[in-house]
Amino acid sequence: MSTTASPAPGAGSRPGGRSARVRAAVHLAVRELVADDPGEPLTIPVLAARAGVHATTVYRRWGTVGELLADVATSRFSGDIVVPDTGSLRGDLERYASDLAKDLCDPDTLALVRATIGIGGEQGAAACRGERQQQLEAILERERARGGQPPTLERTTDAVLAPLYYRAVFTDDPLTPEWTRTLVSHLLPD
Amino acid sequence: MSTTASPAPGAGSRPGGRSARVRAAVHLAVRELVADDPGEPLTIPVLAARAGVHATTVYRRWGTVGELLADVATSRFSGDIVVPDTGSLRGDLERYASDLAKDLCDPDTLALVRATIGIGGEQGAAACRGERQQQLEAILERERARGGQPPTLERTTDAVLAPLYYRAVFTDDPLTPEWTRTLVSHLLPD
Repeated sequence: MSTTASPAPGAGSRPGGRSARVRAAVHLAVRELVADDPGEPLTIPVLAARAGVHATTVYRRWGTVGELLADVATSRFSGDIVVPDTGSLRGDLERYASDLAKDLCDPDTLALVRATIGIGGEQGAAACRGERQQQLEAILERERARGGQPPTLERTTDAVLAPLYYRAVFTDDPLTPEWTRTLVSHLLPD
Repeated sequence: MSTTASPAPGAGSRPGGRSARVRAAVHLAVRELVADDPGEPLTIPVLAARAGVHATTVYRRWGTVGELLADVATSRFSGDIVVPDTGSLRGDLERYASDLAKDLCDPDTLALVRATIGIGGEQGAAACRGERQQQLEAILERERARGGQPPTLERTTDAVLAPLYYRAVFTDDPLTPEWTRTLVSHLLPD
């Protein structure tokens, strides 16, 4: 996990400068606190102290811890996985599942997903899903462009995305390469 | 969701009496606070005040909010779903998936799962899985006793449990009866 959050353009009231530095400091504080001590309740005063900013600044900008976590998760899970182009649907899905598995195996990433789900509600859940649906849809669309007949997005989500997230978030079973390939082979039998 | 938590035998230092009443009051406070305001950070002082007990009592008994949430989730997700016996593997899995979908659709249940995942770490995750693996294994074992050759527990988890949890926790798509039947039919093609 990168420890320097790069400020998204136009995310604050003023581009760059102090606003961007505050956002970067607060995002970093969230990621560090979540990773270091996931059992501790996150509060805005604690986060603000860690980031070295006034709590009122955090309240004014994000409102609640849930919205702040959703913002951090959105920034973390956007553009994190490049849609692969291996020349076949099977190859693309295997590469994608493998990349996502590696991402979800990172303890800091997993801690952020769990914390965001825990306190961010629907908004947090959407932030954790990130661009996964669009990424899968791009893979399926490429297969259609090749003249293939890929499974639906719903079916692909149930068969590949869901087991990856379930195993990472709800179990301590490892997300092995063999297992991720199995998910794809059940979706696309020979 | 039932609003009276029944004390588990032997859960406290003294059976029944004050110890059981404290446990019931604290469990109820957790379930109410999680359901009412999932975006608010849960802290032991807030929980204790809601339950009408001293914070030191909660610290002494549960240690952390994470352990407390895992205890509440374990109690909530134990014995909540009866393993069905419909006479066929397909029937058993369809009934089980439908019962679990109904359970996960309950907003209070979903709030408890999310909160427990968020702050309970591995222990919380295990509490949310509850007896699901054993329940599925019982369904598969019954099929073997009928002389059938059911899929493995891992495959059944990936195909049925994982999409139910993923859809409930990470999306706002509905867990419809048609969709839960589809999960089983992909696992057990005709």
